[in-house]
Amino acid sequence: MKYCSHCGNPVTLLIPQGDNRERFVCVDQHCEKIHYQNPCNITGCLPTYQNKVLLCKRAIEPRYGMWTLPAGFMENGETTEQGAIRESWEEANATLSIDKLYALYNLPYINQVYFFYKAELKNTEFSPGEESLEVALFSEEEVPWEELAFSVVKKTLQHYFMDRKTGEFPLHNEDLTNQRHNKR
Amino acid sequence: MKYCSHCGNPVTLLIPQGDNRERFVCVDQHCEKIHYQNPCNITGCLPTYQNKVLLCKRAIEPRYGMWTLPAGFMENGETTEQGAIRESWEEANATLSIDKLYALYNLPYINQVYFFYKAELKNTEFSPGEESLEVALFSEEEVPWEELAFSVVKKTLQHYFMDRKTGEFPLHNEDLTNQRHNKR
Repeated sequence: MKYCSHCGNPVTLLIPQGDNRERFVCVDQHCEKIHYQNPCNITGCLPTYQNKVLLCKRAIEPRYGMWTLPAGFMENGETTEQGAIRESWEEANATLSIDKLYALYNLPYINQVYFFYKAELKNTEFSPGEESLEVALFSEEEVPWEELAFSVVKKTLQHYFMDRKTGEFPLHNEDLTNQRHNKR
Repeated sequence: MKYCSHCGNPVTLLIPQGDNRERFVCVDQHCEKIHYQNPCNITGCLPTYQNKVLLCKRAIEPRYGMWTLPAGFMENGETTEQGAIRESWEEANATLSIDKLYALYNLPYINQVYFFYKAELKNTEFSPGEESLEVALFSEEEVPWEELAFSVVKKTLQHYFMDRKTGEFPLHNEDLTNQRHNKR
């Protein structure tokens, strides 16, 4: 951030009065707006059908050609659950019914919080959306474990196949440390 | 948003190619940056001590003089749990140990997601931080129900006193609809 999005004048990185960390602040004496920067939420689904999970092959960077769960940035005006349903529709044309919030990951090194909802596909009439090359169902043995796009996807699938043995699906709330993972 | 924070030129509200909703986009042909706007996370604690909960009387707007749980905007570089601990320290000089994520609220009408962690005070050596006029412990009967700052605070306290009867404290994951509640 170099310029004030409110008045167009240059911003300066400083600690505002009464604050305890640096912010971009507008130095124009008529504006003086403080521009806070905060973490983003990414929300998606773990869509299941019988003994299989739905994955999407990415048609966009980062991780073009790798497999992922349908997920994306939460938008203003929606809930995390609505965002998860929307992303499943956009990326896989999948209609599903949400079961519960299943995974919540903090990724502080890239200022992201991930939400994954366990969801059941209503039917197998899914197909690739604009951001996907391919969409398919995979059993545990069929999952392309070495071609998964993100560590949060791998982790969620591992939790799911483990939990399925007991039939209990508690919320997995974890903080992840730095590893190979790209920002938007 | 009126100006591009990257180059200082005016922005225009339009639907970028391949997108499906309006964004502020820089119209300068050398920049063309898309400025996404996303929901913010607010994170805090429900601090308990024996049969009481800790509340802070707000020294800032909105809701100056009303009582709240320690909470605030999640910062870049921290986890939701770290943010909850930080806010409890900043607002109440309270040291506590986190028990679990206890409430998660979506407030889509103001683009916020709230996280409240159930936490136990390590001692009673708390005191008002800069944003608090007063900090105190309240039993269920003592809670100033008519002077609570936000509906999410009231809801969290109601859940807590109800759950305490059974000793089970499941995650309360709810979507709230529009009501009296201010933005930053």
